[in-house]
Amino acid sequence: MAEENYFSNSFEYKNGILFCENVALEEVKTWLKNRGIKRVTPAFIYSKSQVETNVLLYKNALRHLERKTTLNYALKANMNPGLVRIMKTLGCSLTLVSGFELELALKLGFTPERIVLNGNGKETWEIELAVNNDCLLNIDSLFNVKQTIGVCRRLHRKARVLLRINPDIDPMVHQYNCTGKNGSKFGVQEKYFDDVIREIKSEPLIQLVGIHCHLGSTITSIAIFRESADVMLQIYRKLKHEGFEHMEYINLGGGLGIDYTKHVAVTTDPKILVKERPIDIPTPADLVKVVDEVFGDENISLILEPGRSLIGNAGILLTSVLGVKHGEPKSYIVVDGSMTEVIRPALYSAYHHIDLAVPSQADDKHKMLYDVVGPVCESGDFLGKDRYMSAPHEGCLMAVFDVGAYCACMGSNYNMRARPAEVLISGDKLELIRRPETLDDILAPYDI
Amino acid sequence: MAEENYFSNSFEYKNGILFCENVALEEVKTWLKNRGIKRVTPAFIYSKSQVETNVLLYKNALRHLERKTTLNYALKANMNPGLVRIMKTLGCSLTLVSGFELELALKLGFTPERIVLNGNGKETWEIELAVNNDCLLNIDSLFNVKQTIGVCRRLHRKARVLLRINPDIDPMVHQYNCTGKNGSKFGVQEKYFDDVIREIKSEPLIQLVGIHCHLGSTITSIAIFRESADVMLQIYRKLKHEGFEHMEYINLGGGLGIDYTKHVAVTTDPKILVKERPIDIPTPADLVKVVDEVFGDENISLILEPGRSLIGNAGILLTSVLGVKHGEPKSYIVVDGSMTEVIRPALYSAYHHIDLAVPSQADDKHKMLYDVVGPVCESGDFLGKDRYMSAPHEGCLMAVFDVGAYCACMGSNYNMRARPAEVLISGDKLELIRRPETLDDILAPYDI
Repeated sequence: MAEENYFSNSFEYKNGILFCENVALEEVKTWLKNRGIKRVTPAFIYSKSQVETNVLLYKNALRHLERKTTLNYALKANMNPGLVRIMKTLGCSLTLVSGFELELALKLGFTPERIVLNGNGKETWEIELAVNNDCLLNIDSLFNVKQTIGVCRRLHRKARVLLRINPDIDPMVHQYNCTGKNGSKFGVQEKYFDDVIREIKSEPLIQLVGIHCHLGSTITSIAIFRESADVMLQIYRKLKHEGFEHMEYINLGGGLGIDYTKHVAVTTDPKILVKERPIDIPTPADLVKVVDEVFGDENISLILEPGRSLIGNAGILLTSVLGVKHGEPKSYIVVDGSMTEVIRPALYSAYHHIDLAVPSQADDKHKMLYDVVGPVCESGDFLGKDRYMSAPHEGCLMAVFDVGAYCACMGSNYNMRARPAEVLISGDKLELIRRPETLDDILAPYDI
Repeated sequence: MAEENYFSNSFEYKNGILFCENVALEEVKTWLKNRGIKRVTPAFIYSKSQVETNVLLYKNALRHLERKTTLNYALKANMNPGLVRIMKTLGCSLTLVSGFELELALKLGFTPERIVLNGNGKETWEIELAVNNDCLLNIDSLFNVKQTIGVCRRLHRKARVLLRINPDIDPMVHQYNCTGKNGSKFGVQEKYFDDVIREIKSEPLIQLVGIHCHLGSTITSIAIFRESADVMLQIYRKLKHEGFEHMEYINLGGGLGIDYTKHVAVTTDPKILVKERPIDIPTPADLVKVVDEVFGDENISLILEPGRSLIGNAGILLTSVLGVKHGEPKSYIVVDGSMTEVIRPALYSAYHHIDLAVPSQADDKHKMLYDVVGPVCESGDFLGKDRYMSAPHEGCLMAVFDVGAYCACMGSNYNMRARPAEVLISGDKLELIRRPETLDDILAPYDI
């Protein structure tokens, strides 16, 4: 595949060599070595211009609406401060899910009015931190209202809150990515609505300023967003009607999917399983248009909270081939990247496109089906299954695509593997935005 | 359930209060607070006497054999140095799967003859470290022999190696825990055997001293171990016959399961799903007996490499209830522990027993079905589903059982959650064997 230019974004092949912006990815290895880093792969590589493009797709669509709009980056998708700083420069606000995320946001200079703290299980200190800083708070449940009231009374401070609704809509995604349907732990269901509203009404320190929902992630159908906008609008009107005069926001969460498949027709051989098929992903403009249509003339401020669609396709994992192992019924490309960097295939049966980042120098490079696996000592450690590709040479660089979201942030030290370097590329400029962990880092919390 | 004493190990209920050895688990909270730790739950709690019991079950079974035997702790199950030190004191050797694990083992004073380095994807520096230290090395593939030969020639040193066999046996466990069947990335398949043997024979610096297999983990059938001992014996004889005069070891790996179910009959109500059913787990003595029978009079040194069965039932996760959330069709107990501490339910659909660690003080504590979930912002964040238990009060301590293996070591900082404290209990003595991570720990590799 490496000979085809099937990427329309900031990762592009030129003569079989993969570039990120103006930098050939093999140059990253040299650049890291010159900085004294011994283990240069695996490494996460991010394109700054791709992040900018992604944010602008939303910003441009939102700019034309005749309503107040806010674009919140869902920091949990990738908390690397080097990337969050770009979001700040581009004018994004933040949606956060923990106290440490909030502390990071404040360290990075986000003003409290640009922060929403979300979460189905907040600890008291996390609510206190948000209330003390005047952040917007999502209320997720009856017990969460009571917790928040307790904090406000103790601190003698007001809290501006959004009520998280469970609208019972099926986003048709992996069960772990489904968060707005009955049977999900998130949000308030219709049946319990009145109890929660009564509690909110009972406490003047709690000011209800809007409602929130988040259906899930990796969503590829625009109809689902239309449905949720519609449900939320009805609830918004009902609450306005009930006298919540500060109601202003509808926060529709995030969840827009990205095209992990790269639209690659892998092979025309009908015997070979084609896993990579094009899918039609709605654009941010599609999403914004449909929501704005539903809201119509209603004076509603819109919050969107994308994560994956802002950062997912802006990152790749660069990894080196340790060897090729032939077997029956499977052959393996064993690389130095693993489930400790990219757990999505094992955890969500997720597909990530994988390809050589340089031309193969193998003696026999004929294409065949491989599983691409890492060195971690369990069978859940795979990056891709049944991939039809050229045999790579030992040491060959490979790229696992679209790992900008929900990969580095979910990394572990399983098998005592160090979490790797992260490099940000902008034009021909490289910046180390995370140094690789050392053995000392890993052992720091232990008495040794 | 809390009123019943269904634990025959070091975690036991007395009047509804869960003890680890002589320490009521609620006392651990106070003890941690007194050490200046603010966030005292979640926390991993380990019983030293349980680890000792587990090791002795193997040691006692092995002691009576008329052959040399070695008990290797599979360090990847839990690398906490506070626990590995106990293994050392009890005379265990180690099986390792990465260079950092090897560096830790050397730091802890394990002598090289007590170390096996395993792995399907070793980096050159890892092989060098093992060869320089005269550790036993598992050879996993043709490319791995060539790698090892390269290292030996460069260092002018001999390597003593075991050949890892893929015996094509189905251990009947979760696919991610299956490692010795065709279609697994581990070991050499019969078809490729001669190629690998030829390569080993060609290099005098490579000394083949034995063979290795590891079928997988969570295995609950003794017949599977008999089958693998049988297959391995045939290969051992064949290699002896072919003139490998230094052949001495058969390493049968690990894989013995533990009883995650706790033999609890949950309810007699036929409407309610009973997920917790007793299973018959073979003991280490059963395993040792069957293997020794198969090996018979043959002069074979036996290596076993248990991980889970040495440490799994010696640890619990102590967690606090943030709130109870009623819903349709599910209600939730929301706790401060999550998939960032215990990923096994999400990753392997694994069952961990969960129960209150103190009596419920809830106003209405009638039993019903709950999902026990954490605060992480995704639906994969659950610790247990459909658990029939008393409603806990807010702040109530709960215990997730049998998290000694493959939990702490797989922990992540997803949602910027700190990896928690780990406490070792011996009698009435407590020892902090990992301090909780701080925000500074998490941000250390970043430029901020």
